[in-house]
Amino acid sequence: MSGLRQSWVLRERPDGMPDARHFNLISEPMPTPAPGEVLTRTLYLSIDPYMRGRLSARKSYAPSVQIGEPMTGETVGEVIASADPGFAVGDIVVGPRGWQSHILSKAAALTRLEGELAPLSTYLGVLGMPGVTAYTGMTDIGEPKAGETVLISAASGAVGSVAGQLAKRAGCRVVGIAGGPDKCLYVQEQLGFDACVDHHADDLDAAIADACPNGVDVYFENVGGRVQAAAFNALNMFARVIMCGMVAQYNAAEFPPGPNLGFTVAKRVKIQGMLVFDKPQRFAEWRALAAPWILDGSFAYRETVIDGLENAPEALTMVLSGGNFGKMVVKVAG
Amino acid sequence: MSGLRQSWVLRERPDGMPDARHFNLISEPMPTPAPGEVLTRTLYLSIDPYMRGRLSARKSYAPSVQIGEPMTGETVGEVIASADPGFAVGDIVVGPRGWQSHILSKAAALTRLEGELAPLSTYLGVLGMPGVTAYTGMTDIGEPKAGETVLISAASGAVGSVAGQLAKRAGCRVVGIAGGPDKCLYVQEQLGFDACVDHHADDLDAAIADACPNGVDVYFENVGGRVQAAAFNALNMFARVIMCGMVAQYNAAEFPPGPNLGFTVAKRVKIQGMLVFDKPQRFAEWRALAAPWILDGSFAYRETVIDGLENAPEALTMVLSGGNFGKMVVKVAG
Repeated sequence: MSGLRQSWVLRERPDGMPDARHFNLISEPMPTPAPGEVLTRTLYLSIDPYMRGRLSARKSYAPSVQIGEPMTGETVGEVIASADPGFAVGDIVVGPRGWQSHILSKAAALTRLEGELAPLSTYLGVLGMPGVTAYTGMTDIGEPKAGETVLISAASGAVGSVAGQLAKRAGCRVVGIAGGPDKCLYVQEQLGFDACVDHHADDLDAAIADACPNGVDVYFENVGGRVQAAAFNALNMFARVIMCGMVAQYNAAEFPPGPNLGFTVAKRVKIQGMLVFDKPQRFAEWRALAAPWILDGSFAYRETVIDGLENAPEALTMVLSGGNFGKMVVKVAG
Repeated sequence: MSGLRQSWVLRERPDGMPDARHFNLISEPMPTPAPGEVLTRTLYLSIDPYMRGRLSARKSYAPSVQIGEPMTGETVGEVIASADPGFAVGDIVVGPRGWQSHILSKAAALTRLEGELAPLSTYLGVLGMPGVTAYTGMTDIGEPKAGETVLISAASGAVGSVAGQLAKRAGCRVVGIAGGPDKCLYVQEQLGFDACVDHHADDLDAAIADACPNGVDVYFENVGGRVQAAAFNALNMFARVIMCGMVAQYNAAEFPPGPNLGFTVAKRVKIQGMLVFDKPQRFAEWRALAAPWILDGSFAYRETVIDGLENAPEALTMVLSGGNFGKMVVKVAG
C-alpha cells in the first residue's frame, strides 16, 4: 500500500491527567502485510478509562504501553490488504490495536463482523468491550434477582448504562449514580432507571437511602472514592459488589485507604473484581444477544463521537474527567 | 428439679475489653420444663471471639445480649429432665444457649449426639461451630486447588487450625500466621502446616513473601488490621479471601480504614464474608465427615479447658487478647 499512516505514540508518562503533551503523532510509510497478517483502515477508535492504567509504569493486569510505542485501544476497521486466507478486502473487523490510522494485525487478533450490522461505532460501546463488561459482571457476579435493588455508579457511562438496563430486564429496581442533572435525567428518562442520585449531593448516604428504600442488593462499582463509601453503607445482607473500576482514582499518585471490611462478615457481602478479557467467549455471546436489541431500538445507548484521530488525546482527557456523556468514540475515517 | 442454677447475666456493656465486672453471676431456682422443653445440665461451654459482638449495642448479624439477660454461647449438655418425646434423660446434646449451669431449651434448638462419640468438648471446637466455620468457608468460598498456596491468620486457633488442615488435605501449600514462637511451632509441627509467620514480625510483608514464594491464592481472614494488610499485599490473581472475622478490632470503638479496593479489579480478587449459621445443614455434614478423623487421630486439635462456670468471663478476656492456645472451652460439670 502507498501513503503514510499516522500513529499516536507515548512520549512521556503522565503524573496526573494525561493530555496531548504526553503523546507524539507520527507519520510513517504504510506497512505491508506479511503472511498471516492483515492491514486495516481504522474507522472508529474506542476511548476508555482503563487506558489510564496502560500509561502508567505501575504493574497492572496488562502490560504498560512503552515510550515510543503506539497507544493501545479497540478499533473497528475495514480490511484494505490481507495476507491471510481468513480475511478479504472490504471485511469489517474489530481488533485490539491502538491509536493508528492504519493497523497491521495478526489475523488471529481480529474478529470479522457478519450478518446484519448495527451502527459500526456500537461495536466499541454497547456491543463491544464496555457492553461485555457490564454483561459479564452482572451475569457472573451480580446475579440480580427480580425484586432486588441494583445500584450502579457512572450510570450514564458505557458500562453503567448497559449494566442498569440488564438489571431492569431482570426485574430489579435500578438506581443510578451520575454527575449532574443532565446525566441523571438521561439515566431515568432514556435508560429507564427507576431513580438516579447526583454524586455531587452533600449527603450522598441520605440521597442513596432515599432512592433505595429497601437497601442495595447489587452494587456495580465503576468509580471508587466517596461514591463507593456511600454505596457500601447501603448494602444489604448477602449483597454482591461487582468491582469493575475505580475511575475516581486513576490519576492518583497514591491510593487513599478504603473501607474497613468488618461489614463483609456481618453482612456476608461478596466483593469481586472482574476484567472482561478473562472470558473472551462472552464477546460473541453478547453481540449475538444484544445486536437485535440495538437494531430494534429496545436497548438505549449514547455515544460522544469526536472526529479525527488527532483528537484522541483530548478524548481521553474528557473520559477521565467525566467530560464525556455516554461512550466516547473517535471517528477516524469512513 | 430441686436446687439452684447459676447464670452469668450481662451487667453493663463493655467499652473495650470485657471482663468479670461486666457480668453478674446470679443463682435462681431450678426451672422445670414445660411441654416441648428440655432441661440440660451444662457439661462444656464454648468461649469464642464472636461473643464480643453480642455484648455491643452495635447492630450486627445477631441480636445483642440485653442487660440482665444470660450471656449466649454454645454448650454440650446432658438431659436431666424432658417434656418432649424426642429427648430422654441421659441424652447428650449440643445447644445454643449460654453461660448457665442448667439450661431450659425448646427441643427444636437441641441436637442429640449419637453413635460413637468423640471427646465431648470437641463438639464445641473442632467438630462444632469453629470447625464448621472453617469447613464452610474453605469449601464454599476458598475452593483451594492442589498446588495453590493457602494463608491462614490466627492459624493456631479453633477455626484456623481446621481451615489449614483441610487445605493440606486438598493438596495445597499451607502457611499460617500466629502470635509467638510457641504457637508457630505448634502450627508447623502439630497441625502440619508448611510454614508459619509470627505476626509480631517487623516486616510482615517480607515474612509472608518468604513463606509464600508463589504468592497467596486463598486467604482465610480471622484477624484484620496489619495482618490483613500484609496478607492482601501477597494475593495472587484470582485469589479468594474468606472473611470470617477481624478479632483485632472487636474491642475498638471505631473501626480504622481498610484497604483501597483497586487491587480487586486488577487482580480479580473475591472477598466474601460468611457466617456459619447461614448453612445449618453443614453442622451434621461436618460432624459425620470429621468425627472419624478425630477418633482415629488423623486430625489435630488443641483446647484450652478452664474449670468452672465462674471463670467464663476470664476465659472470654483471654480469647479476645490472644491469651488462649487453641479452642477455649469452660468445663462446667461432668
